Amino acid sequence: MKSQTKIHSSLRTIEWKNNTVIMIDQTKLPNKLVYVKYTNYEDVANAIRTLVVRGAPAIGVSGAFGLALAALQSKAKSKENIIKDLEKAKKILFETRPTAVNLIWGLDKIMNVAKKGKDVSDIKESMIQTAKKMAEDDIQTNMIMGKHGAKLFNNNDTIMTHCNAGALATVGYGTALGVIRATKESGKMIKVIATETRPVMQGSRLTAFELKHDGIDVSLIPDTAVGYAMTNGLVTKVIVGADRILRTGHVYNKIGTYQVATMAKQHKIPFYVAAPLSTFDLKSNSEDVIIEQRKASEVTGIAGKKTAPDDINVINPAFDMTPPELITGIITEAGVAKPPFEESIKKLFKSRL
Amino acid sequence: MKSQTKIHSSLRTIEWKNNTVIMIDQTKLPNKLVYVKYTNYEDVANAIRTLVVRGAPAIGVSGAFGLALAALQSKAKSKENIIKDLEKAKKILFETRPTAVNLIWGLDKIMNVAKKGKDVSDIKESMIQTAKKMAEDDIQTNMIMGKHGAKLFNNNDTIMTHCNAGALATVGYGTALGVIRATKESGKMIKVIATETRPVMQGSRLTAFELKHDGIDVSLIPDTAVGYAMTNGLVTKVIVGADRILRTGHVYNKIGTYQVATMAKQHKIPFYVAAPLSTFDLKSNSEDVIIEQRKASEVTGIAGKKTAPDDINVINPAFDMTPPELITGIITEAGVAKPPFEESIKKLFKSRL
Repeated sequence: MKSQTKIHSSLRTIEWKNNTVIMIDQTKLPNKLVYVKYTNYEDVANAIRTLVVRGAPAIGVSGAFGLALAALQSKAKSKENIIKDLEKAKKILFETRPTAVNLIWGLDKIMNVAKKGKDVSDIKESMIQTAKKMAEDDIQTNMIMGKHGAKLFNNNDTIMTHCNAGALATVGYGTALGVIRATKESGKMIKVIATETRPVMQGSRLTAFELKHDGIDVSLIPDTAVGYAMTNGLVTKVIVGADRILRTGHVYNKIGTYQVATMAKQHKIPFYVAAPLSTFDLKSNSEDVIIEQRKASEVTGIAGKKTAPDDINVINPAFDMTPPELITGIITEAGVAKPPFEESIKKLFKSRL
Repeated sequence: MKSQTKIHSSLRTIEWKNNTVIMIDQTKLPNKLVYVKYTNYEDVANAIRTLVVRGAPAIGVSGAFGLALAALQSKAKSKENIIKDLEKAKKILFETRPTAVNLIWGLDKIMNVAKKGKDVSDIKESMIQTAKKMAEDDIQTNMIMGKHGAKLFNNNDTIMTHCNAGALATVGYGTALGVIRATKESGKMIKVIATETRPVMQGSRLTAFELKHDGIDVSLIPDTAVGYAMTNGLVTKVIVGADRILRTGHVYNKIGTYQVATMAKQHKIPFYVAAPLSTFDLKSNSEDVIIEQRKASEVTGIAGKKTAPDDINVINPAFDMTPPELITGIITEAGVAKPPFEESIKKLFKSRL
């Protein structure tokens, strides 16, 4: 497939190959690019638990891959017995990240396939095929999104991005970084400015790493230099991912996104969001969304190195909310929603019915 | 003196006491508050070189203190010979931070006092008195600035500040943090939100430390959470220091100030700058000001811990420029300048003639 050749040079976060699960060990990034291979589900469970793999879509597919390995490991001769083995494995896999909605989604999806299987051999085969398809679907969604998004970017654009909405948060290719990859693949010359994204530094550790790996021109800036970069004409477009998008176009994403969007508006720089339709929450209102606070130690130090006094009060919100009036367009696999978002988002979903 | 009692609880960065120079060892902050004592100028030179003391006003006075110690150390019996000893010491002190304008200012000022001395004993005495007065003047300027500024803040204000414009950058009391101290001393209940200020983390390491030390309620946030804090009503005022202010009211300050000011404007939060008149550059235009780039390693790691891939491009500007339309007022020891700044700044300087 042409599309698979294209992404070959890009990072593949998780992959199923010869009955083996291959993952990038993200705990070793950005210092070393190490691939790990797993042939049993307990190791996959451990990998999820210890953050070898992270990012919602990547975790969902990892769970499915783990359960497919459990099927291969099972010595059961009857459907009843293999399902018992799978239920046990599912429980162990689920308990690695019990609050990650994508994990239980991935596990349930492949467990249902198992339950529909005729016999042990059919179950094993259909689980493997489904798991592989889930991974491919994730990449395909990102690539289609990339094609829609690439049309919005021009030759010689310098694109600012925040956090990591990249291959490393998905099975491969990425959402916001997928659009950047697709823009480059369409033959346009582009450069990227990545914010380091305190406190967890996904911009330095992951985005800078994966773009450099793909040969995309990337410069890293501290989060404090967003305004400087825009005032000095170093940025022509902005693109970010999203953790949740409301029907009104309110976008919840990594802390800091809102101020990048405000600065972009101030400098008349288009601000885009790239996210699959699965990111949309069409029911909630912005008053209903609770922004979780993360632990203080993320702000009082970096990688074990203390940078603040003992027992200091810390405010460390995981996300912030970017209001629709700051957003130029929301790029999805069904097309690009533009203001007014309430209408355009409705249309995108209708087109999928 | 009443004013000295007041600051007694606040940090004193450098002090002359019983022919000894006492400094806070800032390389040990925020983990330990250690005072070091020096009785010879070579040790003061070494302290400046190794960043035991930093911050423009603090370095200027440290140089003067160092030269006063050199006078005490001198065994010369004639004016001619003590001046020779002092010239040698001045050279060694100067070479510790040759680009710091305040250092040469402090050294020249006290050297001129020495040259005017009648004899060895008079030289020693007048140098010590001048050095002590330079330190007191720095604190007095900050305290007067604090009194002017305190009137602009209300009971129950929560004040955001960026970087460290505090006691630790001056001899004591501080500029922006001096205004915060004065507001508290005037009996108003206030809270402070300090941004950590990547890349060099002066907010976490110094501001959070010195406010906590003085018993002022301070919370630390990552630089990415400025917008979140403002949207959520956690901030009622902002105050920052300045590295340079033009006659037009353009303010050059630590990288990130401009976006804090933009976010404040967006949320209708008053944004103040506190700086002594010596910070004003009445000659330059904003086109003339060159913003220096600092080394990449500040952004690719923290305290020796690597957080980004090898050989990544980095944009690491030291300062940014906040335009006058984002500034509510500029607090100086001569009063508060308000828009239009070109007029009000001129008036402040005239009042000093």
